Amino acid sequence: MSLIEALNWRYATKKMNGDVVPQEKVNQIVKAAHLAPTSSGLQPFKVIVVTNPELKEKIAAVAYGQQQIIDCSHLLVFAAWDNYTVANIREVFAHANSERNLPATATAAYEDTLIANYTSRSAEENFTHAAKQAYIGFGMAIAEAAMLKVDATPMEGFEADQLDELLNLKALNLRSTTILPLGYRAEDADWLVNLKKVRSPLSDFVIELN
Amino acid sequence: MSLIEALNWRYATKKMNGDVVPQEKVNQIVKAAHLAPTSSGLQPFKVIVVTNPELKEKIAAVAYGQQQIIDCSHLLVFAAWDNYTVANIREVFAHANSERNLPATATAAYEDTLIANYTSRSAEENFTHAAKQAYIGFGMAIAEAAMLKVDATPMEGFEADQLDELLNLKALNLRSTTILPLGYRAEDADWLVNLKKVRSPLSDFVIELN
Repeated sequence: MSLIEALNWRYATKKMNGDVVPQEKVNQIVKAAHLAPTSSGLQPFKVIVVTNPELKEKIAAVAYGQQQIIDCSHLLVFAAWDNYTVANIREVFAHANSERNLPATATAAYEDTLIANYTSRSAEENFTHAAKQAYIGFGMAIAEAAMLKVDATPMEGFEADQLDELLNLKALNLRSTTILPLGYRAEDADWLVNLKKVRSPLSDFVIELN
Repeated sequence: MSLIEALNWRYATKKMNGDVVPQEKVNQIVKAAHLAPTSSGLQPFKVIVVTNPELKEKIAAVAYGQQQIIDCSHLLVFAAWDNYTVANIREVFAHANSERNLPATATAAYEDTLIANYTSRSAEENFTHAAKQAYIGFGMAIAEAAMLKVDATPMEGFEADQLDELLNLKALNLRSTTILPLGYRAEDADWLVNLKKVRSPLSDFVIELN
């Protein structure tokens, strides 16, 4: 299946049937997020995979009771760095240089520039920037789920502070940005499944400057 | 090619060879962005496709002279709504209801809720939210380019205000968020092409809560 076909097949599933997504497919979906490009390659986000039923119930309770959170087999939580720090930045490049058999100092000047830029900004600005990178990974996970014919419901509708507390994210210097229940559509019980997929007219979406 | 293979193949191309990406492929890449899921389906961004050589030169000048902007055949500019407005929101649902043969008022209550939420927030907050949606579309475009073996360089490094002015985006109630030159790698002249692709250890990236 092409990516375009997959994106046409997918939709924000409103009712899941409870079937379990095979772990191998969940791994591929997480891998797509892991391979997403991010600013300067910093990958300033993590993915939390929740399967624990009690925890899913508690998460649904801070997400307007959205039933897909309970009915999905795996809930992905995308959580971005709450700030960029010297230690985070150094660690990313130390790892990359080591993997590339380069001297630890190979990227020192570039790191210094990044550190100067990020540490001059507020934690909130930096979190917003990190969150945007998480959205690229979120998109890749949505795309890969569709490629594997796994249903998913991209969600922003939850109380982020309460979710952070439930998952103890503050201790990890993370803040939740989006969540993605994975599962399979309940064809007979989903009000959205048979509605036409609608996008804005393409002619409104694209502007050509030749 | 699977999406995972495509994401492993791609990299942030540093030097392009000047070859032209066929229009059909550019169309598919834009289509992937157009199919991206967005919050409440509002699609609060547009894609501007720049091929004009003088304009690309001017854009490079406000983007630290990055040569890929000049050497690419098509430069995609992702520009998000500078605010959510009553008119924008109504228009999206009027179109969707019409496409689905539903009464124009079918989603009135939902629209009212969205309008109340968005209009209570500042333009800056709303732009940030719209920009995040644009990043999902940005990710989809990057993914589709890789599926089609078209090289691309995801970029945030430009003076957004100056780019907005160059493209006259304010008049369209848009603000630039990211840019994506499309083209083909110059294998012999790109310092990054042969460096190992590095991501953080997967075990650091994923947290499992079973």
